[in-house]
Amino acid sequence: MAHYSRLHAIVLDVPADDHASTVSFWEGALGQPIPRVEKYPEFHGTLLAHQRMLFLAQRLGDGDPRVHLDIHTDDLAAEVARLEALGATRAGGGSGPWQVMRDPSGQVFCVVPDKPGTLNDDNAHRWD
Amino acid sequence: MAHYSRLHAIVLDVPADDHASTVSFWEGALGQPIPRVEKYPEFHGTLLAHQRMLFLAQRLGDGDPRVHLDIHTDDLAAEVARLEALGATRAGGGSGPWQVMRDPSGQVFCVVPDKPGTLNDDNAHRWD
Repeated sequence: MAHYSRLHAIVLDVPADDHASTVSFWEGALGQPIPRVEKYPEFHGTLLAHQRMLFLAQRLGDGDPRVHLDIHTDDLAAEVARLEALGATRAGGGSGPWQVMRDPSGQVFCVVPDKPGTLNDDNAHRWD
Repeated sequence: MAHYSRLHAIVLDVPADDHASTVSFWEGALGQPIPRVEKYPEFHGTLLAHQRMLFLAQRLGDGDPRVHLDIHTDDLAAEVARLEALGATRAGGGSGPWQVMRDPSGQVFCVVPDKPGTLNDDNAHRWD
């Protein structure tokens, strides 16, 4: 069965001590408020103005600052299998209903399930 | 005088040995060709489908894989000064007409001059 996916989020991973100052900096840099995400309180986020891309800042328990990308999909298992066939590998960790993966250079990214009906031919890629 | 800026590029920094396989992986993941950028041959890039965001893959001489963001502007000096006032710092390096900076967590990003007339109220933020 066909499924959809799209690159949909830029995520700043920010050490806890720097999180407030970093969110505040990016609010000023972008000229947009970046409020806390109620469902996932370790995240602040907003839809970028003039874009169809989310901008998120995740408060890390530990770890170095990093940017990672999220691919959203309406079929997590099918999308993870598709990306594995292209050369990605599954990575451990992750604290939600998403799959952490690595691209061929070792770069971390996540595959995130979207609400059914969110993705379509107008905003995502259809994989038959 | 007023100037404009916008978050406009996601850049994968990829070690040279992994660059070809990584570009090939992301072409498959996104379902789009990511051709070499003629003017800057160490970059491959494309405008993301359904987005107003560039996706670039830079071949590194050395260094670890990383994702960084580019803010585009029509006034490099004014935008760098604005971001410094918000808490960013200038970083060295960079091999083009852009300014490498760090946000309060130490995360690297770049400020990139855009062609005059490219940025306007419909696609960017105006700073008075």
